[in-house]
Amino acid sequence: MAVEKDTQKAFGWAARDSSGILSPFYFTRRVNGDSDVTIKILYCGICHTDAHFVKNEHGFTVYPLVPGHEIVGEVVEVGSNVHKFKSGDKVGVGCIVDSCGACDNCKQDLENYCPEMVFTYGSITSEGRNNFGGYSDKIVVDEHYVVRIPHGLPLDSAAPLLCAGITVYSPMNYFGLNRPGLHLGVVGLGGLGHVAVKFGKAFGMKVTVISTSPSKERDAIQRLGADSFLISRDAEQMKAAVGSMDGIIDTVSESHPVAPLIDLLKAHGKFVMVGAGTEPLALPPIPLLLGRKLVAGSNTGGIKETQEMIDFAGEHNITAEVEVIPIDYVNTAIERLVKGDVRYRFVIDIANTLPA
Amino acid sequence: MAVEKDTQKAFGWAARDSSGILSPFYFTRRVNGDSDVTIKILYCGICHTDAHFVKNEHGFTVYPLVPGHEIVGEVVEVGSNVHKFKSGDKVGVGCIVDSCGACDNCKQDLENYCPEMVFTYGSITSEGRNNFGGYSDKIVVDEHYVVRIPHGLPLDSAAPLLCAGITVYSPMNYFGLNRPGLHLGVVGLGGLGHVAVKFGKAFGMKVTVISTSPSKERDAIQRLGADSFLISRDAEQMKAAVGSMDGIIDTVSESHPVAPLIDLLKAHGKFVMVGAGTEPLALPPIPLLLGRKLVAGSNTGGIKETQEMIDFAGEHNITAEVEVIPIDYVNTAIERLVKGDVRYRFVIDIANTLPA
Repeated sequence: MAVEKDTQKAFGWAARDSSGILSPFYFTRRVNGDSDVTIKILYCGICHTDAHFVKNEHGFTVYPLVPGHEIVGEVVEVGSNVHKFKSGDKVGVGCIVDSCGACDNCKQDLENYCPEMVFTYGSITSEGRNNFGGYSDKIVVDEHYVVRIPHGLPLDSAAPLLCAGITVYSPMNYFGLNRPGLHLGVVGLGGLGHVAVKFGKAFGMKVTVISTSPSKERDAIQRLGADSFLISRDAEQMKAAVGSMDGIIDTVSESHPVAPLIDLLKAHGKFVMVGAGTEPLALPPIPLLLGRKLVAGSNTGGIKETQEMIDFAGEHNITAEVEVIPIDYVNTAIERLVKGDVRYRFVIDIANTLPA
Repeated sequence: MAVEKDTQKAFGWAARDSSGILSPFYFTRRVNGDSDVTIKILYCGICHTDAHFVKNEHGFTVYPLVPGHEIVGEVVEVGSNVHKFKSGDKVGVGCIVDSCGACDNCKQDLENYCPEMVFTYGSITSEGRNNFGGYSDKIVVDEHYVVRIPHGLPLDSAAPLLCAGITVYSPMNYFGLNRPGLHLGVVGLGGLGHVAVKFGKAFGMKVTVISTSPSKERDAIQRLGADSFLISRDAEQMKAAVGSMDGIIDTVSESHPVAPLIDLLKAHGKFVMVGAGTEPLALPPIPLLLGRKLVAGSNTGGIKETQEMIDFAGEHNITAEVEVIPIDYVNTAIERLVKGDVRYRFVIDIANTLPA
């Protein structure tokens, strides 16, 4: 293939149309700029967002699409203005690779709420190019959007922290659901939920998993360390837990009733959604008033907080529970992911299975 | 009438049935206990809650009902353990006259969220009596639930602060919507909304009133000091204000669409309801996630905060805009209130118009 001026060759797997089937794909990335690092990708997690995007379920996918925003790799080149990293460093890239740098959100390290924020894949960059994600051999990213993976954290199971991890950690932090002795509910035990349980326990909280699947109870308690398990369809169990929780992180993106979940909160309790369907919630206002409860949303986190999150994970040995797969299993993995058949995150072993 | 043991005679106006018509009523109150103060009532505001209760619109009114929880008066007797007050003090009583004193909420001065909180009227007290509110000549209240009216604040127009005032002040305080330079939206310009505008301006905020009534614009800006006025049914005006507000206090208790109001918030904006209908809100979750916005409710405030609120009002000369009426106008006043025909609060001149 011809390489344009100011670009370098890259290789990955892409979806070409809304069938969502991924296959090998040659493309280009920008050459390493003064503030950039080039990262040889070692592992990339498969987020549920990837499954939505490959099939254009949100309606704005541009093909070809190389997904992947849970990227861990090794720095192989640094620009002349790069100060934080050197070749050989183990680093991560999450959902964001650019932002305006000047707005109120950027000034407060909240790049994730910058109106000009550029997602790691499927976004149009400031150079007008459609960008490509982490199901690929390398990525070139401004150092501002790169975080350091703490020494000792396994690189494969750390990868999902870059999206799933920060997505639950950030609201726990912002809404004060990170204090010893509080009681946290986690709705949904998937990629996000299982990491929320681990963070909750590391913060010293009592953690209750709320799920429709009785089959997950044993895993929740024995493998992940949750204190208790509530089956959301069991009216008796739900009734017994009314008014018992300080906060709830709801990771479920399909539409589901929220009123019974809000009833689980104590006064001043906080119900925070990090997944969301497109249907409006039916939200009874009186319980919110009588208990000064709040319902909120949160969308990933800023770069500074992502570094804090992964440093915290390093100190507490928090990683995702992963099933590591070769790249040529990716289409099957996405099918299984959509069916909920993974405990709890697929991670692609890029370095060992994506041919150069 | 016969006076029971340990009671004293009292006189007021009561509703006798769900017609909601009030008429003169002789009843008893407890004698002044060791921790009690007896207050000669001078003024009592008419809250929208009173209108709901006299007609049993919530379904749990016990008749006869003496409404009134925006009470200002003069202390005429104090018990032997009373430390905060002496005879002659000008004091106020709001929505709460008792609570358990032992729960987490009580310990944090949040008696308003105590599960055993006793409302000022229409509640069953710990002695098993149906209690009576401020449309009456006197009231006996434990001193803990009494606040001091700051010197210089007019007693008639201060009365509505005891409910309307604290109801908007408390969430502005709790949710941080009390800082200079922030932009506050106030939905609905009635008894609560017009006081919210005044507090917002006293906090140094930009205040925009959001209303369905174009006729209120002039009053909002010229009389109350609001900075701007948005007609919620004007799609162009609403569109121009998208993403402009740090917080919204919604005082409207009839069901109304909240999605367009949430769109008015900046990222991290807070939408707080202090009035609420019984219908569930239709709340689109995606805008909450993408902007880390929150939707919450709040229900009056604790006693300590009520004192802080009224002290703040004293320092900033904040009172309600009131129409002072004689007691025998009360039935007409309630009719007018229900039609929204008052700017902005009726206050009954008890001392001068209720015969002894």
